[in-house]
Amino acid sequence: MNAQELVARTLADIAARDRDLGAFVAVCDAAQAKHECERALASGGALQGLPVGVKDILDTAALPTCYGTPLFAGHQPRSDAAIVQAIRRAGGVVVGKTSTTEFAFLHPTATRNPRVPGHTPGGSSAGSAAAVAAGLVPLTVGTQTGGSVIRPASYCGVVGFKPGYGALPTPGLKPFSWSLDTVGLFTANVETMALCAQAISGRPWAQGLEDGAAPVFGVAWSYPWESLSASGRTALERAVAALRTAGATVREVTLPAWLGEVFSAHDVVQGWEASRALADEYAFERDRLSPTLRDYLAQARGVTDAEYAAAQDTAAAGRAALGELFDGIDVLLTPSAPDEPPPGYGSTGSSSFNRAWTLLHVPCLGVPGATGATGLPMGVQAITPPGEEALCLRAGWHLQQALA
Amino acid sequence: MNAQELVARTLADIAARDRDLGAFVAVCDAAQAKHECERALASGGALQGLPVGVKDILDTAALPTCYGTPLFAGHQPRSDAAIVQAIRRAGGVVVGKTSTTEFAFLHPTATRNPRVPGHTPGGSSAGSAAAVAAGLVPLTVGTQTGGSVIRPASYCGVVGFKPGYGALPTPGLKPFSWSLDTVGLFTANVETMALCAQAISGRPWAQGLEDGAAPVFGVAWSYPWESLSASGRTALERAVAALRTAGATVREVTLPAWLGEVFSAHDVVQGWEASRALADEYAFERDRLSPTLRDYLAQARGVTDAEYAAAQDTAAAGRAALGELFDGIDVLLTPSAPDEPPPGYGSTGSSSFNRAWTLLHVPCLGVPGATGATGLPMGVQAITPPGEEALCLRAGWHLQQALA
Repeated sequence: MNAQELVARTLADIAARDRDLGAFVAVCDAAQAKHECERALASGGALQGLPVGVKDILDTAALPTCYGTPLFAGHQPRSDAAIVQAIRRAGGVVVGKTSTTEFAFLHPTATRNPRVPGHTPGGSSAGSAAAVAAGLVPLTVGTQTGGSVIRPASYCGVVGFKPGYGALPTPGLKPFSWSLDTVGLFTANVETMALCAQAISGRPWAQGLEDGAAPVFGVAWSYPWESLSASGRTALERAVAALRTAGATVREVTLPAWLGEVFSAHDVVQGWEASRALADEYAFERDRLSPTLRDYLAQARGVTDAEYAAAQDTAAAGRAALGELFDGIDVLLTPSAPDEPPPGYGSTGSSSFNRAWTLLHVPCLGVPGATGATGLPMGVQAITPPGEEALCLRAGWHLQQALA
Repeated sequence: MNAQELVARTLADIAARDRDLGAFVAVCDAAQAKHECERALASGGALQGLPVGVKDILDTAALPTCYGTPLFAGHQPRSDAAIVQAIRRAGGVVVGKTSTTEFAFLHPTATRNPRVPGHTPGGSSAGSAAAVAAGLVPLTVGTQTGGSVIRPASYCGVVGFKPGYGALPTPGLKPFSWSLDTVGLFTANVETMALCAQAISGRPWAQGLEDGAAPVFGVAWSYPWESLSASGRTALERAVAALRTAGATVREVTLPAWLGEVFSAHDVVQGWEASRALADEYAFERDRLSPTLRDYLAQARGVTDAEYAAAQDTAAAGRAALGELFDGIDVLLTPSAPDEPPPGYGSTGSSSFNRAWTLLHVPCLGVPGATGATGLPMGVQAITPPGEEALCLRAGWHLQQALA
């Protein structure tokens, strides 16, 4: 099957199967797909026509971009987001837009979890996680401001990768909090992730993926944001046991006290910035926002400059102290999410296990393969120092192999 | 004069005086200005209705945004750039858009230099520098990817501030190179700059501006990118002598060898990213690009992933080694630009004294008051470690006072 055929089959597959899933909110027509495929192949990029879904919080010039809200229904940006341009140059073909929660915040999408019927797929990158989990496309793009890549990957049982802040380009992303908004990716396995992330970023992140010994893992059993749930403990124990069986070194670590301050600082940074990034929407179209977002923005407007400055200082101090966190270990393991995917579609779950890392700007890779207390998917997250995306992926590959 | 009157008078002033200057490419009408002024005052922000000009590389929902190119003539974005929202919340009133070179690269604007007739105002933030120099508005926004804030500030004899990368928000900036694109500001003096930058950023950058002793300055007489010109040496000697007369300590330093590698890495990072960020414009509207940009993009497409990765590694290593650069000094002084503003309007001058600092993501403040070999304006640039915007502004204030 050549690239044109693969793209055509992907579109047919989406047409046939996505009605019940709700992962896509817009797809290319046949002519657009053919044109995009020709451009991708002409680029000579490593992805060679791979079909890609892009979260609808990122601008596309050929497809409407609605940011998950009726305020932007039918909105057609003039230019592609930089990540879309980078994907095309890497040989990828953007075949459609995947659902996002309203402005990538908490109000749920209509997307279903293909792995766990009746449970949320998570958010905000709901469609991107679900599309990969359902096998509709091999690669999707998401964004994370709190836990919007790693959490839905955990709930849907796929690999989610949030590289370091800014390592994948953010221009053309409708901002929520510009110090936090980070572009990430979803795939079915770590090998595909490493190859795709390398091709798009231009950085040698896949080098040595399967070579050599496993890195030294650290694991913590106590967290400053909340206690480990039964599912969190089960998943982490399973990962640690599997890694040790595979011959890897796993050290128990105590997380530094400042990590709790970083966690608290996340809300402050996000609130100050969101109340500016969405100021017009709040000022002029408040009644068309979800109550969740409206109430959040009403409260966020109260964050003072002094609180914001202190929170940014806390974040900067945390980044400067990361050597302490990684003392004696290469990679930190935590649950990807506090629990299994919650039942129902009223909530997208909690980002408590993600927020501090997003604010610290460090690479995070969510790896599926563990399960929680009731047997539903639980991801385990590998976290590395800044700039260590290749190490993060290599650690994730060892984790994936151990859990298999 | 109240805020509404000030804004009305500013618009009248622009109408009367900007025809010959060409600093503005779009201005509010009276109804828009009144509405914007009401919103700004309602915010309670410190700027209290201050009129502001915004470079036309940044999206505005109420004014067309043309990125300095006929390709986007009449383009009307749906949302304001985040910096525009932050300015409004700080109490500023965006009264118009200021000229930018084509996509903020090198092809000149029609803007004139109000301080030096017949000489370029510099670029790419030509209109923002010229508007402040002409006294049309007290504050303008620019962007810097190479030297697009500090260089025009030098040529036009105003203060230009490029805070650390990302310290002012970039969403809604038409990208050229997302690892470099940085939002900056122009004002007539350092006091105004500190107050405005603090109000917009939410960070206490103006604190202690005029208090206490001057920081320890470092000065280098040799640079890895090019030799000091007669004007560069004259300006730097003048600044050093003035600071010493004022009682400040100025140490002579030797710049580390790796700084030359960082300088070279800038071109590589910019080329790889620009050939993606402007891929559609190159693919479909090549004939409507300036020859300068078209030829640049044709060459930039040849930058390989391996070259890009190596350049990003060089940048990261440089950032990690900044302690060495600032060993024994608080602030580094260099000329803002290699020379006085070049005669004519065919070129916007060289960014050689800015590129390395832009890639290193460090704060830079260009202070006017010196002159070159033929008596035309020469700025002197204060550079500090990351996160030290307040120190940078304080150093700039001492420099300004010494040069006065």
